Amino acid sequence: MGERTIDFWFSLGSTYTYLTVMRLPSLEKSAGARFRWRPFYLGSIFKETNHVPFADKPAKMAYMWRDIERRAAALGIPLSVPAPYPATQAALANRLAHIGVRGGWGESFVRCSYRQWFQHGHLPGEEPSLSSSLREAGQDPGLALEEANDPATDKALVAETDEARRLGVFGSPTFVVGREIFWGDDRLDDAIAWSRRGESG
Amino acid sequence: MGERTIDFWFSLGSTYTYLTVMRLPSLEKSAGARFRWRPFYLGSIFKETNHVPFADKPAKMAYMWRDIERRAAALGIPLSVPAPYPATQAALANRLAHIGVRGGWGESFVRCSYRQWFQHGHLPGEEPSLSSSLREAGQDPGLALEEANDPATDKALVAETDEARRLGVFGSPTFVVGREIFWGDDRLDDAIAWSRRGESG
Repeated sequence: MGERTIDFWFSLGSTYTYLTVMRLPSLEKSAGARFRWRPFYLGSIFKETNHVPFADKPAKMAYMWRDIERRAAALGIPLSVPAPYPATQAALANRLAHIGVRGGWGESFVRCSYRQWFQHGHLPGEEPSLSSSLREAGQDPGLALEEANDPATDKALVAETDEARRLGVFGSPTFVVGREIFWGDDRLDDAIAWSRRGESG
Repeated sequence: MGERTIDFWFSLGSTYTYLTVMRLPSLEKSAGARFRWRPFYLGSIFKETNHVPFADKPAKMAYMWRDIERRAAALGIPLSVPAPYPATQAALANRLAHIGVRGGWGESFVRCSYRQWFQHGHLPGEEPSLSSSLREAGQDPGLALEEANDPATDKALVAETDEARRLGVFGSPTFVVGREIFWGDDRLDDAIAWSRRGESG
C-alpha cells in the first residue's frame, strides 16, 4: 500500500498557508508525500458565509501573527510579521497560481509570492510582487496576466472552488486525502499519516 | 528553573475543550505541568465580536466534529459525536465551575459535565447533567445552584472574563504562560514546552 496523493487546497491570500508552502518541499523528500496544488477562490466561500477571518477580530488577528511567528521559528522558516493584510488582490494571484500549476510553474510562483509577502512585505497579486514572482517562475508577466484575466481562467477557478465547497473545504490550507479533510498547516502531519493508511482510510 | 503554572482558560460550552479536560490529569503526571483552571464567560466575548463559532457554518461544524473524533481516537479518549450543540446553559455551568474551582471540586464537576455531554449526550448546565455532575463532585445541587445564582458569583465571573479579554483570550481552551497565549487543545503541548522555558519565556 503506497501513500496516496494529498490534495493541497489553498488560497494565495491565506496567512497560515505561508508555513505550508515553505515546508512542503522538504516534507515531500523526507515523508515521501505527494501533493497536488489546488488554488481556489476562498474569498468566495468566505463571502457566502459572511465570514471575515481576522480583519474584524483584533484579538484573533494579534494571536494569529504571534502563533505563525512561533510556529515559523520552530520550523526554521524566516519571516517578518505582522505582514501587510489582507491581500485584496488574492483572486488574481489565485488565477495566476491556477494557470501556473497547469503550466508547471505554479509552485515556483506561489512560493516566490509568499516570500515577497512574508519576508519583504509585498502583497501577492499586486506590484512589485506580481512581476517579480512571475519572472522568478520563468514567465513573462504580460502574457501570464493576459491568460489570468481571460474569462476561461475565471471559469476554471470557479469550477475548482465548486469542487472545494463540495468536499467541505472552508479554509486554507486544507489537505484532502480521499474523503478526509484536514484544515490548517498544523494538520499537515495528520494528513500525511492518513495518506499512508492506503485505501482503507 | 522549574516550570511555571499554566492558566487554563475555558468555557464549559466549548467542544474542543472536552479533549483538554480529559487529558489534563495524565499530562499533569507525565509532563509535571501545573494548571490553574479558569472558567469564564466566553459567550460574552463572542457576542461582543458578533462571533458564532459553528452554528451558522455547516461545513466548519461538520469538520469540527470529525476533527474532534479523529483527535480523540488518537488520544484514546472515548466519545460519541456529534454531541448535542450548542450548550445554551453554558453561563450557569461556568458559574458552577467557578465556585467549584474555589471550593476544590471544580475539576471533578467540569470533567463529569463533559463526560455527560460527550459520552452520554446530555448538555452541560441543564438536567440531567447538572444534578448528577454536582453529586459526582460531592455537592448538594440545591446549595450549589443557590451560590451559582447569587449575583456575587456572576460579578466574579464577569471579572474573570474581563481579565481573559485583557490577556487577548478569544476562544476555549486557551493556555496562558506569562504573556504568551496558546489557543486550542492542539497547542497544549506547545504551552507546556513554553512553561519550561522558565522566566526567560
